[in-house]
Amino acid sequence: MFNRTNEAKVLRDPIHEYIHISYQVIWDCLNSREFQRLRRIHQLGGNFQVYHTAEHSRFSHSLGVYEIVRRMCYEVENINNSLNEFEKIQVMCAGLLHDLGHGPFSHMFESITQKSHEDITMELILDEKTEVHQVLKKEHTNLPNLIVSILNHSHPNQMLSQMISSQLDADRMDYLLRDAYETGTSYGKFDLERILRTLRVKDGNLCVKESGMHSIEDYIMARYHMYWQVYLHPDAKSYEILIELFIKRYQKIRNQIKIQSLELLFEPLTSDSFYLLDENRLFYSFQQALFCEDEELKDLANRILNRHLLSFKEDEKLNGHYQYVYIEQQMEQDYLPYHENKDPIWILNKNNECIPISKCSEIVKALLRMETKTKKRIFYN
Amino acid sequence: MFNRTNEAKVLRDPIHEYIHISYQVIWDCLNSREFQRLRRIHQLGGNFQVYHTAEHSRFSHSLGVYEIVRRMCYEVENINNSLNEFEKIQVMCAGLLHDLGHGPFSHMFESITQKSHEDITMELILDEKTEVHQVLKKEHTNLPNLIVSILNHSHPNQMLSQMISSQLDADRMDYLLRDAYETGTSYGKFDLERILRTLRVKDGNLCVKESGMHSIEDYIMARYHMYWQVYLHPDAKSYEILIELFIKRYQKIRNQIKIQSLELLFEPLTSDSFYLLDENRLFYSFQQALFCEDEELKDLANRILNRHLLSFKEDEKLNGHYQYVYIEQQMEQDYLPYHENKDPIWILNKNNECIPISKCSEIVKALLRMETKTKKRIFYN
Amino acid sequence: MFNRTNEAKVLRDPIHEYIHISYQVIWDCLNSREFQRLRRIHQLGGNFQVYHTAEHSRFSHSLGVYEIVRRMCYEVENINNSLNEFEKIQVMCAGLLHDLGHGPFSHMFESITQKSHEDITMELILDEKTEVHQVLKKEHTNLPNLIVSILNHSHPNQMLSQMISSQLDADRMDYLLRDAYETGTSYGKFDLERILRTLRVKDGNLCVKESGMHSIEDYIMARYHMYWQVYLHPDAKSYEILIELFIKRYQKIRNQIKIQSLELLFEPLTSDSFYLLDENRLFYSFQQALFCEDEELKDLANRILNRHLLSFKEDEKLNGHYQYVYIEQQMEQDYLPYHENKDPIWILNKNNECIPISKCSEIVKALLRMETKTKKRIFYN
Amino acid sequence: MFNRTNEAKVLRDPIHEYIHISYQVIWDCLNSREFQRLRRIHQLGGNFQVYHTAEHSRFSHSLGVYEIVRRMCYEVENINNSLNEFEKIQVMCAGLLHDLGHGPFSHMFESITQKSHEDITMELILDEKTEVHQVLKKEHTNLPNLIVSILNHSHPNQMLSQMISSQLDADRMDYLLRDAYETGTSYGKFDLERILRTLRVKDGNLCVKESGMHSIEDYIMARYHMYWQVYLHPDAKSYEILIELFIKRYQKIRNQIKIQSLELLFEPLTSDSFYLLDENRLFYSFQQALFCEDEELKDLANRILNRHLLSFKEDEKLNGHYQYVYIEQQMEQDYLPYHENKDPIWILNKNNECIPISKCSEIVKALLRMETKTKKRIFYN
Repeated sequence: MFNRTNEAKVLRDPIHEYIHISYQVIWDCLNSREFQRLRRIHQLGGNFQVYHTAEHSRFSHSLGVYEIVRRMCYEVENINNSLNEFEKIQVMCAGLLHDLGHGPFSHMFESITQKSHEDITMELILDEKTEVHQVLKKEHTNLPNLIVSILNHSHPNQMLSQMISSQLDADRMDYLLRDAYETGTSYGKFDLERILRTLRVKDGNLCVKESGMHSIEDYIMARYHMYWQVYLHPDAKSYEILIELFIKRYQKIRNQIKIQSLELLFEPLTSDSFYLLDENRLFYSFQQALFCEDEELKDLANRILNRHLLSFKEDEKLNGHYQYVYIEQQMEQDYLPYHENKDPIWILNKNNECIPISKCSEIVKALLRMETKTKKRIFYN
Repeated sequence: MFNRTNEAKVLRDPIHEYIHISYQVIWDCLNSREFQRLRRIHQLGGNFQVYHTAEHSRFSHSLGVYEIVRRMCYEVENINNSLNEFEKIQVMCAGLLHDLGHGPFSHMFESITQKSHEDITMELILDEKTEVHQVLKKEHTNLPNLIVSILNHSHPNQMLSQMISSQLDADRMDYLLRDAYETGTSYGKFDLERILRTLRVKDGNLCVKESGMHSIEDYIMARYHMYWQVYLHPDAKSYEILIELFIKRYQKIRNQIKIQSLELLFEPLTSDSFYLLDENRLFYSFQQALFCEDEELKDLANRILNRHLLSFKEDEKLNGHYQYVYIEQQMEQDYLPYHENKDPIWILNKNNECIPISKCSEIVKALLRMETKTKKRIFYN
Repeated sequence: MFNRTNEAKVLRDPIHEYIHISYQVIWDCLNSREFQRLRRIHQLGGNFQVYHTAEHSRFSHSLGVYEIVRRMCYEVENINNSLNEFEKIQVMCAGLLHDLGHGPFSHMFESITQKSHEDITMELILDEKTEVHQVLKKEHTNLPNLIVSILNHSHPNQMLSQMISSQLDADRMDYLLRDAYETGTSYGKFDLERILRTLRVKDGNLCVKESGMHSIEDYIMARYHMYWQVYLHPDAKSYEILIELFIKRYQKIRNQIKIQSLELLFEPLTSDSFYLLDENRLFYSFQQALFCEDEELKDLANRILNRHLLSFKEDEKLNGHYQYVYIEQQMEQDYLPYHENKDPIWILNKNNECIPISKCSEIVKALLRMETKTKKRIFYN
Repeated sequence: MFNRTNEAKVLRDPIHEYIHISYQVIWDCLNSREFQRLRRIHQLGGNFQVYHTAEHSRFSHSLGVYEIVRRMCYEVENINNSLNEFEKIQVMCAGLLHDLGHGPFSHMFESITQKSHEDITMELILDEKTEVHQVLKKEHTNLPNLIVSILNHSHPNQMLSQMISSQLDADRMDYLLRDAYETGTSYGKFDLERILRTLRVKDGNLCVKESGMHSIEDYIMARYHMYWQVYLHPDAKSYEILIELFIKRYQKIRNQIKIQSLELLFEPLTSDSFYLLDENRLFYSFQQALFCEDEELKDLANRILNRHLLSFKEDEKLNGHYQYVYIEQQMEQDYLPYHENKDPIWILNKNNECIPISKCSEIVKALLRMETKTKKRIFYN
């Protein structure tokens, strides 16, 4: 019923060997300008300033998430049987498109625009002016709405949302593996094959057979290590703070000083303007600022372009006067590898019952008892 | 005599595990603005349009070349003993800095500016206004000149040039391994450890012990495969042609239509303007062109940003009328994995004599006898 | 129609990640005593004396061949469609069982018994007394005969034989990858995924799409390198020569001196005696020989157990008197990575015609023109 | 002062790329008959019955331990400076030789002979009749004693013992990496490079810089996973139990029935008899038992040779009558990835103080709080 590509398309990928595409709607989404724009957004924001090879984009990651969703749909017998073709297409599209709304240096962008990337993603999919919307609509009138309902967890089949966004989802699985590969750390590796092999559906929920529990523990530890080694690295944060300070400084002085390429950031956000807001524009703007008349903006631009980072201290007081001070509060949930509140990872035991992993894994039990506290980091210069 | 860093610095790298830095002058070069600029130039130009993960920069590659040179200097006993500390510093700097002069989309940039990237590299190193020059000069008055003499093969110690640029140099060894890793192909892999272990110096020339010959054959085959699978891929070429056509179109109409960010490309090249000429500027300019009044420029910008590539044919005639036609002549030397003219790879045989590899390897002998012909590729739309 | 296992069985394997088994007959063959015996035969004979980690058995390799055949059958669309279920079972069994007839230190064993391992394999499959025969027969009366006809190339469907034994077969593909992995060399690696992806059936023959030609070139080079680096290594040969000399010496003196465990080697070969002839028996016998009264046998046993190898020379004369001299003639075909006589690798070109790879690959063309000569190696002490 | 080999020897190894040997005494130990014997003892006992590729020997592992010790000695600046040449030789020998005393199927052998493999190792090193003793003695009269003092923790320099046997020693580091590689699981992998880079000496004790703490956590988790996935696997245990039952049955009936090759096991242990006690002898004996007149011994032999394992239950009662019953009590310490009693892993904090890892790692803290209980496994048939 749904259009297939003439022949199966494959894209070489270092994480999954190949990305396999056989539906036309997937291929067309991939070629939409909203999706191609993701090539111009770094997956790891400022992290390439710490791990110099972490230069990969959200484009690559999005393809990876799609591929894991596709494998779940077709290689996990249980899921294969419980979803119809249309549901599979919906969830594969949702996997591919879930990061469409990321702005340049996402955190900064969200704080300036006061909009979450999740909301922007959904708006782009629903906006009749976007290519991606038109592609989806052409395949099935209701496809844009259904994909959005997967992304905002209102889809009648909850499992589809779990595949994209839960404690054990295609999103995290791809980014852990990919970010580990691209940074050259070994910490993010875990046994994706075994997780897929032991994944099951039980009463409409994803769960993992008991024999796969160790691979889940390994995956949770991978998360833990990647948080500490990569995602929360102070130098990456320091770099992103410089960008945030730059934009805020510009915001303050833009009635006196104009950098034309930056102005778009302060206009009302539309799908057209969002398409143009990428990291190339920001970097070009940093260059422009090198020649402006505001000393602070100039200094920040120079720091960003030539990697003069802020210093930082942990849980300490800062004495004396500084040009820049930025205090970051880290919440417990930011650095815990696994939370178990409304959304546990379910283990299917030998009696065919689903129990939360914290009830059967000594490791997870121990992790959840970890002493955590709110941490403060001060960045300054 | 030469300044060392307080403690050895190490940078994580997926190809070499770690990049090791213990000289202050290396560290300072790395932090110079000319070197940091390399983060904003893709290593493989338009290739990330074919292999979506090939998003790495010349910054990473340059660090890798440095690391291989460093290992040659210290881990190859023979080289370690035959070079003094100053020579080692010269050649490590030359490895680190050899790609400094690459413009955005190098081939296009060279054709617009009529300057080779090699020449620009040397000019930057010699230009008293660059940070990199100042860093080198501070360490030793003659260091900039000596590095340039390595790069242009006029250094009294020819071996230093061979380490950076020959048929078996640190440059190629790093890029084959790195490009294979980043594209996710296995073709570029070869046994770097064994090559380093069998590398020797004989009468002031680099050579390889006979027991390492098979690893050299493997390396030559890796080159062959990477040429065909990656470097000469028609879609990558097609993308770069679009960029070249874009710039040439703009050049033609720039007295009527102005894209401010592009103008720098047509001003006299200085170290200051070169610093600003990176790929972010180009991509920002493509965006700007979407709103210009020249239909052709607009169309080309749209093609570049959203990956609408040209079609191509091989060794055939093109009939009919087309908007864009670009004919590429490939020379034999462009796709031969190994040439043996003035600069062979030397094999040190059991009698302690150096002979060209083509005299002892049946594989290389066979490769050099390969029938090659000039090939023509037509790109069009 | 054919019995399936209760649930799919999977065996962890470093080369293929998992070996997948879903037919009962495969599972039962694997558990037969003839197959379990393969755990007691080294895959690479004496090579673990050169590459100390090359300690893997023919059991592991046989599972790997089965797995590649299985993937050919189900993952290559073209093959999947052109074979019926019974043919798939036949060829999977043939892949699994093809090495059943290897004796301990195969070459030596063949020279003593004057029987090829291929013949013994077929005899075991046809012999009503073997467990493996009974297992096959139970599944289908004609299964033993059909498997034998695949192995001796008399099966009506020639393609089945090509999958097991041709210039591009599951046997070689597994052993190159496995032996490279276990020795720790990188030379044997090639892109199995891409070969499988480009494999096709045309007029009942296996062939490879033109777009896969480079991966075939890579595979042929992998063969070339493994021959020279691993399979023909003089120290491995030297070790096997010691074993051959030992057995021949014993044969000569066994009317005076008896080593009970060795006597079986000289009795008529039956499926029962063959089951008992493994490498444990040989090694136990070498130990026993340490205490015998023949000085030469004792010396050879000591050399084998404690790795005192023979010296060797290449293409030279041997002067003087030596206790042991063994001259080996290497034929061209022993060290050529690819021959093209009756059995070429076929490339399917864009016009849908099959042509031998030597007609379209410059690399293969060059390799076939390689100058080869008969080589002589003298082993002595 | 100490003899060096003519040129550095290197052995290819998949875990460490190369094993580097430059001292004659190491080379001679490696060539001693006691060390060569280790090729005939599986590293993982019966585990190759579960993970079919786990066929590697204690020979390979011992070389790996040596290599890690060597790297600690020369690549960890701190250790390099704090040890003299003789101490380095002692500890490298101790690493190489530490497993010399393992009998065939070690656990079974220890229970029959009532001697630990550690004691046998030390006896072999001290026994004037062994080749390994003579090699060591020739290099330095006191070398055998000093190595033994490292192994039994009585050496004046405690750090040498820590390098070989502690919570973070070369032994475990090699076997985790090697066993993971050979089984094809990813669980045992951890970042050896980073551990070596952050290893320090403080007040004569090994410790790890705070910046390496995450790699230690990763290593401890690797231990945890390898215990559960590999070392404690019930099928491996089941196989070893069959061997133990076989030997015990034979012991009981050996006054009626004689298997000559087994008798050596019940004679007084000497260095000469120990040399002959390897796994080939056992496997040959199992074959012999197939023809004996004791039905139970015959059945056990058949089970061992053809992999008919016992069933098993966990923490349950066994009802009914069975031919074989074997109850195993697992102690807490058998399956805890890390204990912290007398021998913690020390972390060197920023104030240059050593603190036990359990005081600074939340993960380790959590692990030590894991609820553990004595577990019972029943194997039966």
